[in-house]
Amino acid sequence: MCRWVGYVGSPIAPRELLHDPQCSLIEQSRRHAPNMDIPNGDGTGLGWYEHRAQPALFRSITPAWGDENLLELATEIRTGLFLAHVRAGTGTPVQQTNCHPFRYRNWLFVHNGHVAGYQTLRRDLLLAVHPDLFGNIAGSTDSELMFHLALTFGLIDDPIAGIARMAGFVEATAAAAGLDEPALQMTVGVSDGARLYAVRYASGPEVNTLFVAEDLQAVRMLYPDNEREAHFSDFARVVVSEPLTDLPGVWREVPAGTALIIDEHIEERAFQPVSPMAA
Amino acid sequence: MCRWVGYVGSPIAPRELLHDPQCSLIEQSRRHAPNMDIPNGDGTGLGWYEHRAQPALFRSITPAWGDENLLELATEIRTGLFLAHVRAGTGTPVQQTNCHPFRYRNWLFVHNGHVAGYQTLRRDLLLAVHPDLFGNIAGSTDSELMFHLALTFGLIDDPIAGIARMAGFVEATAAAAGLDEPALQMTVGVSDGARLYAVRYASGPEVNTLFVAEDLQAVRMLYPDNEREAHFSDFARVVVSEPLTDLPGVWREVPAGTALIIDEHIEERAFQPVSPMAA
Amino acid sequence: MCRWVGYVGSPIAPRELLHDPQCSLIEQSRRHAPNMDIPNGDGTGLGWYEHRAQPALFRSITPAWGDENLLELATEIRTGLFLAHVRAGTGTPVQQTNCHPFRYRNWLFVHNGHVAGYQTLRRDLLLAVHPDLFGNIAGSTDSELMFHLALTFGLIDDPIAGIARMAGFVEATAAAAGLDEPALQMTVGVSDGARLYAVRYASGPEVNTLFVAEDLQAVRMLYPDNEREAHFSDFARVVVSEPLTDLPGVWREVPAGTALIIDEHIEERAFQPVSPMAA
Amino acid sequence: MCRWVGYVGSPIAPRELLHDPQCSLIEQSRRHAPNMDIPNGDGTGLGWYEHRAQPALFRSITPAWGDENLLELATEIRTGLFLAHVRAGTGTPVQQTNCHPFRYRNWLFVHNGHVAGYQTLRRDLLLAVHPDLFGNIAGSTDSELMFHLALTFGLIDDPIAGIARMAGFVEATAAAAGLDEPALQMTVGVSDGARLYAVRYASGPEVNTLFVAEDLQAVRMLYPDNEREAHFSDFARVVVSEPLTDLPGVWREVPAGTALIIDEHIEERAFQPVSPMAA
Repeated sequence: MCRWVGYVGSPIAPRELLHDPQCSLIEQSRRHAPNMDIPNGDGTGLGWYEHRAQPALFRSITPAWGDENLLELATEIRTGLFLAHVRAGTGTPVQQTNCHPFRYRNWLFVHNGHVAGYQTLRRDLLLAVHPDLFGNIAGSTDSELMFHLALTFGLIDDPIAGIARMAGFVEATAAAAGLDEPALQMTVGVSDGARLYAVRYASGPEVNTLFVAEDLQAVRMLYPDNEREAHFSDFARVVVSEPLTDLPGVWREVPAGTALIIDEHIEERAFQPVSPMAA
Repeated sequence: MCRWVGYVGSPIAPRELLHDPQCSLIEQSRRHAPNMDIPNGDGTGLGWYEHRAQPALFRSITPAWGDENLLELATEIRTGLFLAHVRAGTGTPVQQTNCHPFRYRNWLFVHNGHVAGYQTLRRDLLLAVHPDLFGNIAGSTDSELMFHLALTFGLIDDPIAGIARMAGFVEATAAAAGLDEPALQMTVGVSDGARLYAVRYASGPEVNTLFVAEDLQAVRMLYPDNEREAHFSDFARVVVSEPLTDLPGVWREVPAGTALIIDEHIEERAFQPVSPMAA
Repeated sequence: MCRWVGYVGSPIAPRELLHDPQCSLIEQSRRHAPNMDIPNGDGTGLGWYEHRAQPALFRSITPAWGDENLLELATEIRTGLFLAHVRAGTGTPVQQTNCHPFRYRNWLFVHNGHVAGYQTLRRDLLLAVHPDLFGNIAGSTDSELMFHLALTFGLIDDPIAGIARMAGFVEATAAAAGLDEPALQMTVGVSDGARLYAVRYASGPEVNTLFVAEDLQAVRMLYPDNEREAHFSDFARVVVSEPLTDLPGVWREVPAGTALIIDEHIEERAFQPVSPMAA
Repeated sequence: MCRWVGYVGSPIAPRELLHDPQCSLIEQSRRHAPNMDIPNGDGTGLGWYEHRAQPALFRSITPAWGDENLLELATEIRTGLFLAHVRAGTGTPVQQTNCHPFRYRNWLFVHNGHVAGYQTLRRDLLLAVHPDLFGNIAGSTDSELMFHLALTFGLIDDPIAGIARMAGFVEATAAAAGLDEPALQMTVGVSDGARLYAVRYASGPEVNTLFVAEDLQAVRMLYPDNEREAHFSDFARVVVSEPLTDLPGVWREVPAGTALIIDEHIEERAFQPVSPMAA
């Protein structure tokens, strides 16, 4: 299980979510928690939008808790939209090209979960990626492949629809291969630089968690009383795989089978995979 | 808290202790355990004696659980005496020169624990290292400094005495600086290529654990019934910071304030720091 | 241009070829030379046969000249058959899975050269790899793909024939894609643990170099007068992409379009790609 | 020999000096040049001032030419004052704490050169660092130690005087140790966030080079005709260890024994070490 956080709002230093809260993303990467039996120490990454339409990427194979560069960057930059990730590998190597976020043009993608039987399915999934997108795959994870399948299936025109067709295709491919396990576990975070998209879905009954802090007062609760006013002055939305604090009232759990489209407003939709037949 | 394992006996592939047992050193480096709140993911190392009087070193900043080279080496080499270590940093950077084991000529040294107030004491401790040994210090840890202090105080002539004087000197330096905390926490493993030396000691009531498997039948219990005869055919002694299995009868806890001198025989002595006054 | 060295003979420490000669492989990795405009600093690797039928692998993204672990290993191990490589990337990322040698069961593979237009051809080449071998591809280089194509085309039964069919397939794929440049530049080194195979070939007039030291007296010339008798006592064959010394009489250039099969004897054959039509 | 570049002027993306010119700093790190016999592949770093009085640091052990994070950062950030460095180690390990720039509070420091006989002198030099500064030394290079000696000798109050006393102290220490070689080779770049200070000096006749582009029209010459107006619109000063282009009229060589104080004006002073006696 990986962990990730997405933010859209007034420009902040990412450190305010990655490092400073009680259960910050970096602290989550190593601190034992009830639902974490191994650390998220197989690399980390931060993608952010600041001066350009294309996001900047920092990715590193160092565990997040020991990565001096990650902390420097998260302290220095100011950004109104970012995605950050800490990885616990599920069989693919620890290398920079396997660290999230993945990028295509102005798009970023992070994922927590896995494709069951990935080694069996990998070749078939890879062949389904549009040849024009193939050269953008630099690593070997299921996550990067899911992103490029979603791109192949229309993510740029309709992000949620692209993800739904990707999920349907992965499930159909697993079924065709006769795999028994639930095919897909995912929470994904996606951005085009203007909005943050998030989906929580799994093919089976076990579904990785996703939480949203949608209300400015709630986000301010991340900070001590006397600092609250100084932070997140205009608007702030945070999506996380696990809460960054255990304060009641800050985090709302996103139901399984849900997609969120987040900017100043938050739109919530039911999410269902779309099978290739239906498409 | 770091973890380490020392072995002396018939030549084996270190993998038999580092990777294969239920709670192998590599598994210990990431799997949550009751007495571990953060992983040992800040580097790893293996020092072994095979073809030469000088030990060979492999050290890496990659977490042990994801280090392909460590596993390759541990599978390929055959050695009758080795020390391996997984690190959880206590404030000094994650870099190869801070990974254990440390080496001087034919000597290896690993450590689990810390010097309290190290940042305050570091300069004074460093000044006490013999100038001829100073150039052998390549990193910035308390552990490497403890090794070079023990060398300065006679480790080569009498390893346990050298460690005792080092411990006494660290405690005296901490006292002189007015530090309140217990000065030293340590289990150390040392070898000259012929014997394995191990010490368990702390200045205060909290003492990191140390265990020894001293009996061939006991060591064989690390393996399933049908494989036992194939392993550790002649003699085998294992010292570990934490047991590699939870089997009863394999591991004997070494009492606090104890030194072991291990070859085919195991000599056990009371260990007490020797203050610089007494020396 | 990468550099590599292969050795078969009496067991030696690889350091005798990787580090000690005047133009050792490690020195070649950084020292400017007339035919080298950029260093071979994009990772290194060593594969060797010692205790098992399967070779051991050490691979690292650190430049060879600064890799302490490489030098330690090359000093400590003793092996009668090894392949070592220093990489200058040609567009694919610097990551461990892109470092040579590549391994499949008891086989090792190193390559110096490139597939022209690789980004264009990669998808088609990847699809041609046998699905059972697909899961063994962990990186993204043309070299690893060439190895798996050669495996697909029968390398295990007949190494030179497998390489010839791979070369023919790459050339045919490039032609079908309408690429103009000569498709393939390669010197390759392959071993099954018993023999060393080497091929020098290019589709066009520019052909990377390959040299062999086939005579024991010649190999001893790598060492100063007074040390010669101590080294390479029984037999020793060395294949290199570039000479390790500039001594006359040691190195014989292998002609372009040649395959070598090396054990105590050296068999030399003309090498020609075999087109898929002919196969 | 390392290479470095310092910039002060209107905010730019550091990429305009690190990556885009014909002989950019990154290109210099690997491309052979007449005065470079080994590459600058032992790590890289970038320190910049943007949102805070304290500079941000990115440092990496990856060669600059293959460091994706360096290029991303250099493309994304906008800064009016930065120092960047590519390292060729002179005996100390390749680790992040040995990469330049070094930082103390709002100060940055880069160095090209070396202290002759450093292993012999290191202990004495380290002892001369003010105990309050000692804890800020995280690595093992002569460069970092030179910075902390300059801080000890008053760099914060008067940067050039602090450097002069440091140089005098290093020379006196080398003389006291009976070393024959010229003690010090250095070009250094220093900044407090407001100005850029640069010094070119050596104890002997061989002096590493230093160049300055002080005139806006000159700096614009780094770019093709049609792009010139778009770059460096207000003011721009660049100091480099080696020219970034071979265009005549852009770079003026700074004479040996010179210090520069650079903001909108450039002040040039003779530089002489100040011996500890004189101080």
